[in-house]
Amino acid sequence: MRAAYAELRVSDLAVSESFYVDLLGLVVSARTDDALYLRGWEERVHHSLVLRRADPVGVERLAFRVRSNADLDLLEADFARRGCVTRRVDGDHPGMGVALRVWDPFGVPLEFFHEIDRFETQLQRFDLQRGAPVMRMDHFNLHSPKVEEWFAFWLELGFRCTEYISTDGEDERITGAWLTRKPTVHDVAFTAGRGPRLHHLGFYVAEPGGVLRACDQLAAGGFAPAIERGPGRHGVSNAFFVYLRDPDGHRIELYACDYYTGDPDLEPLRWSVSDIRCRSFWGARAPDSWYDESSLLLGPDGAVTPTFDANVDERTARSEVMA
Amino acid sequence: MRAAYAELRVSDLAVSESFYVDLLGLVVSARTDDALYLRGWEERVHHSLVLRRADPVGVERLAFRVRSNADLDLLEADFARRGCVTRRVDGDHPGMGVALRVWDPFGVPLEFFHEIDRFETQLQRFDLQRGAPVMRMDHFNLHSPKVEEWFAFWLELGFRCTEYISTDGEDERITGAWLTRKPTVHDVAFTAGRGPRLHHLGFYVAEPGGVLRACDQLAAGGFAPAIERGPGRHGVSNAFFVYLRDPDGHRIELYACDYYTGDPDLEPLRWSVSDIRCRSFWGARAPDSWYDESSLLLGPDGAVTPTFDANVDERTARSEVMA
Amino acid sequence: MRAAYAELRVSDLAVSESFYVDLLGLVVSARTDDALYLRGWEERVHHSLVLRRADPVGVERLAFRVRSNADLDLLEADFARRGCVTRRVDGDHPGMGVALRVWDPFGVPLEFFHEIDRFETQLQRFDLQRGAPVMRMDHFNLHSPKVEEWFAFWLELGFRCTEYISTDGEDERITGAWLTRKPTVHDVAFTAGRGPRLHHLGFYVAEPGGVLRACDQLAAGGFAPAIERGPGRHGVSNAFFVYLRDPDGHRIELYACDYYTGDPDLEPLRWSVSDIRCRSFWGARAPDSWYDESSLLLGPDGAVTPTFDANVDERTARSEVMA
Amino acid sequence: MRAAYAELRVSDLAVSESFYVDLLGLVVSARTDDALYLRGWEERVHHSLVLRRADPVGVERLAFRVRSNADLDLLEADFARRGCVTRRVDGDHPGMGVALRVWDPFGVPLEFFHEIDRFETQLQRFDLQRGAPVMRMDHFNLHSPKVEEWFAFWLELGFRCTEYISTDGEDERITGAWLTRKPTVHDVAFTAGRGPRLHHLGFYVAEPGGVLRACDQLAAGGFAPAIERGPGRHGVSNAFFVYLRDPDGHRIELYACDYYTGDPDLEPLRWSVSDIRCRSFWGARAPDSWYDESSLLLGPDGAVTPTFDANVDERTARSEVMA
Repeated sequence: MRAAYAELRVSDLAVSESFYVDLLGLVVSARTDDALYLRGWEERVHHSLVLRRADPVGVERLAFRVRSNADLDLLEADFARRGCVTRRVDGDHPGMGVALRVWDPFGVPLEFFHEIDRFETQLQRFDLQRGAPVMRMDHFNLHSPKVEEWFAFWLELGFRCTEYISTDGEDERITGAWLTRKPTVHDVAFTAGRGPRLHHLGFYVAEPGGVLRACDQLAAGGFAPAIERGPGRHGVSNAFFVYLRDPDGHRIELYACDYYTGDPDLEPLRWSVSDIRCRSFWGARAPDSWYDESSLLLGPDGAVTPTFDANVDERTARSEVMA
Repeated sequence: MRAAYAELRVSDLAVSESFYVDLLGLVVSARTDDALYLRGWEERVHHSLVLRRADPVGVERLAFRVRSNADLDLLEADFARRGCVTRRVDGDHPGMGVALRVWDPFGVPLEFFHEIDRFETQLQRFDLQRGAPVMRMDHFNLHSPKVEEWFAFWLELGFRCTEYISTDGEDERITGAWLTRKPTVHDVAFTAGRGPRLHHLGFYVAEPGGVLRACDQLAAGGFAPAIERGPGRHGVSNAFFVYLRDPDGHRIELYACDYYTGDPDLEPLRWSVSDIRCRSFWGARAPDSWYDESSLLLGPDGAVTPTFDANVDERTARSEVMA
Repeated sequence: MRAAYAELRVSDLAVSESFYVDLLGLVVSARTDDALYLRGWEERVHHSLVLRRADPVGVERLAFRVRSNADLDLLEADFARRGCVTRRVDGDHPGMGVALRVWDPFGVPLEFFHEIDRFETQLQRFDLQRGAPVMRMDHFNLHSPKVEEWFAFWLELGFRCTEYISTDGEDERITGAWLTRKPTVHDVAFTAGRGPRLHHLGFYVAEPGGVLRACDQLAAGGFAPAIERGPGRHGVSNAFFVYLRDPDGHRIELYACDYYTGDPDLEPLRWSVSDIRCRSFWGARAPDSWYDESSLLLGPDGAVTPTFDANVDERTARSEVMA
Repeated sequence: MRAAYAELRVSDLAVSESFYVDLLGLVVSARTDDALYLRGWEERVHHSLVLRRADPVGVERLAFRVRSNADLDLLEADFARRGCVTRRVDGDHPGMGVALRVWDPFGVPLEFFHEIDRFETQLQRFDLQRGAPVMRMDHFNLHSPKVEEWFAFWLELGFRCTEYISTDGEDERITGAWLTRKPTVHDVAFTAGRGPRLHHLGFYVAEPGGVLRACDQLAAGGFAPAIERGPGRHGVSNAFFVYLRDPDGHRIELYACDYYTGDPDLEPLRWSVSDIRCRSFWGARAPDSWYDESSLLLGPDGAVTPTFDANVDERTARSEVMA
């Protein structure tokens, strides 16, 4: 139904809390000895981000909400048929019931669930709000070594493509794809790059001014080096964005300016990889770290999932076109 | 699936164009001798507002998009079963195919359709954009003499309630309801008042600053009297709003700040009619005209649909509580 | 040189602190048993607002900064020549030295001073900032029973007029005047009304979005009734404003959007009293309280200064024109 | 009194007009065969930017307004005493009278004038405004090979320093200085770099959102390569900025967020050259072009003024500190 929460392993909960709660302003829903459960201002679900102190640092799971527990059975059967590891869990987190963990054919640690407790929204507790106006967790963006195979897989799961980047010419190759269940630009996206890795978590901010306020507050609080790229405008998705690196290097996008994609005959918007506006509408070059670095994923055994180089490289593809 | 377009009868197309196109900045998709077809900046469908010069002035139809033409058959049967007038049309408008017109049990002129041409979005043609950043038509808001009966009817049609206002005490009466298909606060809403009438069309604006710019431009262009209420914040829906009256008195809401409502277990948010924050979070009183005046609807015969007083009055209900 | 600080008597310091510090976000520079010294985020001077618990509630002084202590002698002589009460004080407040208190010919309690301690600016401590982005105290706005006599007096003091409102026709009467020393629209303004009274203190906010945030936070914190008028746009001064009433009824304007007035040949901008845009560019009517209510001033003896009806009434003048 | 207008030589007036008028939204005050006279939305003076088609491209003059024509005599004597070329002109431009042109001791082509025609402000003609909300020309920023000598010279001219950058340690060297007459952060600034050259003209924009809109519109209009740096926040001056290169490479800063500097005892704010926040509060590195490229100045003979390397280099100074 939609991207719902991510669980990230971090090395120091107190430092992470300072970043996510004190500066970015996420709301604390619960805390345990080794974990922090956070949500955005408008969110009513128990959490959309779980930070757990654990070693090695990496991505424990990317969770999607489904309409009912019955959907878990269908998904379990489907993933088992594909030969994926599946695992039923119950009560892994405060505020949640049963859930289905799976490692997809490419090694991405997914979770599907329906049951989750609800809180009152903090949307109108403007007097309590601090930091950036982070409304809700919105999407997962992954680095994929095989974009086209991933693309086919996610379409089979029932996602729709809203925008994509591809090479020009006869031998068209897709180098990035944005897919969605809820009617925004995306719930999940993947772009060509060494992977599987998590490129970033996207958080929706109420307006561009909120993205700027986040930058000001981070810098004033001594976290300026956390600002990796932006603020700026993406061509793809029209997002007004800034990319941050949390204290463990996990990348966070704060973005504003989405659009409605719910019409069934929506045609995916194609961007040529040679059009620099697709990544940066205003033309600013992203730093190499933004292309090269991503968070490692954790496998069923708790170890880091091996990564592979992409079979097509966006920067190379672009350079070839431009050369 | 969602509220899609409204057709309003107006008395002078040139004056209406000056208001909707020159000042508000809507994009002209097509024009005929007696009609103007408009859409917002992000919209890809052919039109979300049709202005037709015709007498008497009023609301010709409120149209919802459905997933496929097959849904039209189901809806036709359902409305016929209720004893409603239904009418198949084909090509009533440029860019559209078959559609189902119906007058609902309370006299509201609805239309359901699937087929509509698409345009390229103007979302990123920032250089061409003028006026307020009006992204898309979002919802219809009606005055209803029988809110609770309407409420039951729209739930049966498959809409979900996101927020409502009701009286306090044992004899709870609903005085307003916000219902939706797409995962925003509403596609349709109705509040107690002489009706059936159209209270307003809601247009989504990218950010609060865009609402302010619209006010500045309207006033500078000599349309200050068109600003009826606001800008301000609603408690219900969290909208940052301004209400305008077009040259024929049709009411337009420009609003920013919506929230995601797609989760299936979303519980409707209740507001007490005695809580003045539900209508005006900042406490400013709405003018009487905002409560009393609305656009008349047109029946199957082209004549104005008779209206009736509401069986419960929000202002009275509130006053009683406060007295 | 410029309007510098106001001292207001309040009835309950804790309640006032909750309003000015917790919700509006002013910075506390110092506190004594019976007083609170506040400043805005960009201000380097010790204080721009002094709140003192004292009875009766009212305005203790409106203070202007001068270039040097020598100017105090010139001013003392000038006011003495006019028969005004003058009084030298030293160290009335923490962070200040000698100052000249005077009661002007119309009973307004003024102060002139040069010496004041400086703090580091908090302009870029974005991480500490709360509430509205209140940058600095900007101006005093008074109700005057004799606008034209006051106007002549302030011009003699060396202020320049930037904008004014006057009646139409041969018998032109000035009903409001905006005067300045620093090159913004005003340091002091007075409009026709029962007086002498203080209509409001104006605080400069960085941008319109900050004014909106202040409203949201006040309402969420239970202070919605404090919002008396707006937000809206003034024709005069171009200010994007909201008017608040503090817990004792003292009126505060938060405003954004000023303009540069430093050129010596700047011609005052005239507004006709019959042009409703001068007070409300968007046409919204101000509530009667905004015209009728103001803070009382305190005389040399600590008693409330008597007030008189205005010799010309803006609303009447306007109505006559419009009738 | 204040920085008033710049005259730039450009290679193609039509292309320049497309950039400055169609996209940035400056108002055309007058046009002649070979020149275009522009002003910002709030400006009442005839022009604040003159674009003249002429060869070679460069900076013809940087003009300051003075209080009266009598000041021209004083300035003429002062510059003559320093051995500078001075020249009286009359009616060089439409809307202007007598003026004093001088080439300062370092080769910068200055002009001082008092007489200039006034227009009605366009501040509230929101309906006519296009592009970025460019309010007024604000300051000149120069590359100087000898910052400390220039600094002494401008202090002698009567400017006050608001902020500066200097090296750490015993042998403190000033590498940048911001000076002002009007009470904002600056009318003129110079930083160490090959010079004398004009680094940029600064235009004041009403709010950060306006800077973002300018970027969106430039990019949509095909001018994305014109965006050289930003948007971002300066530590120095607190400006929220974007730097553009016009079609001839002249650099324009659009900025919001200034502060009041009128108090006579304002102490200059020092930034260490080793603090990267002084140039980029959020930490983003400026491109080399921003440090290296600037507009050439034109001498009394119409030829390009020779340039020299700086005697101290900010980047080197910073690197040494950081090494």
